[in-house]
Amino acid sequence: MKLSARNVLKGKVVKITPGAVNSEVVIELPGGAQIVSIITKESVESLGLKEGKEAYAVVKASNVMIAVD
Amino acid sequence: MKLSARNVLKGKVVKITPGAVNSEVVIELPGGAQIVSIITKESVESLGLKEGKEAYAVVKASNVMIAVD
Amino acid sequence: MKLSARNVLKGKVVKITPGAVNSEVVIELPGGAQIVSIITKESVESLGLKEGKEAYAVVKASNVMIAVD
Amino acid sequence: MKLSARNVLKGKVVKITPGAVNSEVVIELPGGAQIVSIITKESVESLGLKEGKEAYAVVKASNVMIAVD
Amino acid sequence: MKLSARNVLKGKVVKITPGAVNSEVVIELPGGAQIVSIITKESVESLGLKEGKEAYAVVKASNVMIAVD
Amino acid sequence: MKLSARNVLKGKVVKITPGAVNSEVVIELPGGAQIVSIITKESVESLGLKEGKEAYAVVKASNVMIAVD
Repeated sequence: MKLSARNVLKGKVVKITPGAVNSEVVIELPGGAQIVSIITKESVESLGLKEGKEAYAVVKASNVMIAVD
Repeated sequence: MKLSARNVLKGKVVKITPGAVNSEVVIELPGGAQIVSIITKESVESLGLKEGKEAYAVVKASNVMIAVD
Repeated sequence: MKLSARNVLKGKVVKITPGAVNSEVVIELPGGAQIVSIITKESVESLGLKEGKEAYAVVKASNVMIAVD
Repeated sequence: MKLSARNVLKGKVVKITPGAVNSEVVIELPGGAQIVSIITKESVESLGLKEGKEAYAVVKASNVMIAVD
Repeated sequence: MKLSARNVLKGKVVKITPGAVNSEVVIELPGGAQIVSIITKESVESLGLKEGKEAYAVVKASNVMIAVD
Repeated sequence: MKLSARNVLKGKVVKITPGAVNSEVVIELPGGAQIVSIITKESVESLGLKEGKEAYAVVKASNVMIAVD
């Protein structure tokens, strides 16, 4: 499946914090930067996410803001 | 100003495509990955964004999805 | 690629309205309901979207609101 | 109240999973497709949502992505 | 129609900037604060939005970030 | 840091409801209107949010819908 989302960043799952409905998943990119994601607990299970597993962080371009110093 | 958004990635503006209301801004991260953002044309102007300028891509954690192969 | 987004609805592209940066894409579901999407013009091109083509509307669960009469 | 959101899909609540802050609500459309929504627990209560009740899934067009096989 | 979105702020339309696909709508709240919204051009038309008209700015709680000085 | 988000509303934290992963934060604006936000529990801690503290509600323009009576 090919997706319209313009941002697809490959990395590795380094931490999963489960809640009742949502879970927090942290992806580490090759350069060491970390991306934090909140997805449903059921998605964590259906994707079989585990620490150490390869995964992509996916973000729609309209959800990216820009900041400057 | 310190923001609740968990994802703040430093990079450099490499491309700006203006529209009537929204503009597309591409940020290149140090490792070479690119982040595409859609923000209002007025924000591009008020932040003084220009190609070559340092900037941050900012994403709220609830807007990050995860994918696996 | 398998995605964490919980809502993936199969349909057919029935209309594409291009803008300078964003385009509006309408997907018709089998029952006749229509889903309207705003994605970047570049995504419309990279996915090869055309009227009549099969496609999926994809929505993260945290972006779905509920209403009652 | 008439809303700018372009996607308003009528269905029936088939499942509610409560958490401390957010709840997951599943709406089944007439054709059998299901839409998953994450809203605050307080919204579930103020709307009086219950399994079997009619409700609408509402999505802003800019939050709909497109995918192709 | 009653909506799950927790933030519904009443004000008056003070400016509309149309684009090919999206339009920018500015709502002024009673206290003078302004809220900027990007919605589709078609929604501006179907809601009959005009400068001076009363309208509500509506935001899902999961789309509100917090910042501190 | 200057942000592209067009909506930055100053107020005071009046209520924090913590969950396992996300927390609900209510900001009261000077005129008495309240803004409800869902952010991660870790952001509440890293920003040092407490009831009575000044804070800003921040919303990207593309996440604001419009409604009329």
